[in-house]
Order: sequence, then C-alpha cells, then structure tokens
Amino acid sequence: MGHRIITISREFGSGGRTIGKHVAEKLGISCYDNELLEKIAEESGLAKEYIQERGEYTPKGGWLANAFSDRSLNGLSVQDYLWTVQRKLILEIAEKESCVIVGRCADYILQGRADILTVFIHASMEQRADRIVRLYGEREDSPEKRLRDKDKRRAGYYQFYTDMDWGKIQNYHIALDSGVLGIDRCVDIIASLY
Amino acid sequence: MGHRIITISREFGSGGRTIGKHVAEKLGISCYDNELLEKIAEESGLAKEYIQERGEYTPKGGWLANAFSDRSLNGLSVQDYLWTVQRKLILEIAEKESCVIVGRCADYILQGRADILTVFIHASMEQRADRIVRLYGEREDSPEKRLRDKDKRRAGYYQFYTDMDWGKIQNYHIALDSGVLGIDRCVDIIASLY
Repeated sequence: MGHRIITISREFGSGGRTIGKHVAEKLGISCYDNELLEKIAEESGLAKEYIQERGEYTPKGGWLANAFSDRSLNGLSVQDYLWTVQRKLILEIAEKESCVIVGRCADYILQGRADILTVFIHASMEQRADRIVRLYGEREDSPEKRLRDKDKRRAGYYQFYTDMDWGKIQNYHIALDSGVLGIDRCVDIIASLY
Repeated sequence: MGHRIITISREFGSGGRTIGKHVAEKLGISCYDNELLEKIAEESGLAKEYIQERGEYTPKGGWLANAFSDRSLNGLSVQDYLWTVQRKLILEIAEKESCVIVGRCADYILQGRADILTVFIHASMEQRADRIVRLYGEREDSPEKRLRDKDKRRAGYYQFYTDMDWGKIQNYHIALDSGVLGIDRCVDIIASLY
C-alpha cells in the first residue's frame, strides 16, 4: 500500500479542522470531516445534525443503563450504534484511499497501520477563545466555558470508546501548538511528513 | 532580541539528546547538555558525576525533612541548591546567546519568553529499549525497568520543581515521536522552526 492516512485530533478552537483541510488540499487528497459526517448519516439513517450534536456524547451510565433507557437499534444505544457505523466507514475509507481524517477517534480505529500519521493540534486557552468567538460568535456561556465543556466531552468520548487518554503525548506521532506556530506552519510540517 | 532558544525535553532513550545536538550543529548554535552540567559543576562546586547522578532526584520527604536530614549549603538541600544554580545559569545563557538546551526544566525556567521553542521527544517503549541497549549496553535491570525508573524520576523531578506535568502535550510547542519519524526528520522539523 503506497497511500498514507493522516488523522488529526484537536482541541476545540485550535484550528485543527482548518489545518486538516489545508493539508489535504496541499496534498491533493480527500479530507474527511463534514464528509465523514454525511457518510455516517447516510449509512446510519440518522440526521446529520443529530450525529453532530450527539456524536461526541459519552453514553451515560454505561452499558447497562443504556440498554434500558436509550435503546434504539439492534439493541445498541444510539451512541454505540453510531460508533459501529463510524468505525466501519473509517476502516473502509482507509482501505480505499489516501486522506486526512479529522477527529472521530480515527487514530485509534486505524492504530497499528504502518501508513498512518497521527497528529494532535492544541493551543492556549486564550488563543482558542479568540478563535471561537471570531468564528462562531459570542454565546451565553463564556468562550472559556465552551472550550472546557467541549474538550471534556471529546476526552470523555475518546476514553469511553478507546480506553485510552485523549491528548496523551505518547499517542501521537506529532503534536503542534497552532497558536504559537501558526496554522500555515502546522500545515507545512504535516504535509512534509506525508 | 533576535536570537531563539530551543528547549528539548525527552523521554529516556528517545534520542532527544542526539536530536538536540544535531539541531544545534545544523543551526550553528551551542547545545547545552553536557556543557550545562559542567557549568553547574563549576558554579556549584559539586562534582559533575554527583550532579549527573543526583540531578534528577526529587528531594525526599519535602522541604521540612530535607531541612534536617540533607541540609548542606545556605540551609538548602543539595537538590534545591543545585536547582537554584541551574536556574540561574539557564537564565544567564538565554540572555547571552541562541542555543539548544536539553532537559533540566529549561522549558519551565524560560517560560513566557517570546523567543523560545519548547520541544518534547518521545518514542515507544520497544524502540527506546532497543536504543538504550545499543547505546549503553545490557544491565542487570531489564531495559523496560530502566526506562520506567528514569522517566518516573524525570517526571517527579519536573513536577517537584515546576508544579507542572512533565510530558503534558499542552506544555510543548511541538512534540515528536522519534521512533516513527526518525531522528533526522525530527532534526529537520525543529531546525525549520528556528
């Protein structure tokens, strides 16, 4: 297999999605972010908005609670069902083509492959707060609270499904502070490793 | 200030020292590793071997215990005394010249400067075990135990003096897996950010 897959995990507001998109453009390969969401929606039969909203929630109360309260498809909770669909799609995509995959535990799902590069993007709270206010506007909650909530949810989701720590330095081939290095420099470094 | 300082923190056996040396050579700047040890020895009046051996030990039992059991110079424990000497020298070096500094909490001591790049180098247990056996030979303890002991000591030392977590992804501008990327590629990436 000659192709390579780049997975990008990122703190909320760090610009990881933008970096992924630009890396893919630079390399002339696909970037699965929104595209993956659409595929998951299509395959699962669930609405894209619902997946986006619920996709990073950890099933509450564990397997047993879910089995009774949140039961839906094939006896799985909605989250677990989404996880199986997502996992299947990511494995299929990785077999089929070179690409960048943003989030969705792709680093874990594809781990052990020789042709994968796992990336983590982070930035300081201040820089991320600036960024989300610039991109998504002000909300009732402070940007800091929004960042903390979202990161906590991502970390919880990741840990639940992978039993590994999200953002643990040893889990990534390269980790970059996009606030200090800048988006363009991050793109150049990642693309140079392809 | 036009100069830049690169600090390299590293897991034992990850090749971080070698990377630091090569980056400095490539950029034509000094690399403080052994050189720093010699300066600390000179300034402190303690033997280099003693500093090397004890330099990464955390004072046992905290300040109070030390004050009575390990008291030595100016009422400080040897470790605390070494820390103050080390801190002073690192600040002096940073004022004076562009350089690479390996280990010794330089990232913490110099934090907040605009002209610093903080790097963390890590690699898988297997690759580090291979490396230390190749470089330092077999010992009575297994390579895995030696790695675990040394990393634990570094993490403990770092945490004791900085109150921050060693190897926490957010503390470094760039973190690289030298086992997957290779020493040369790590050198190129770091040098390109200078």
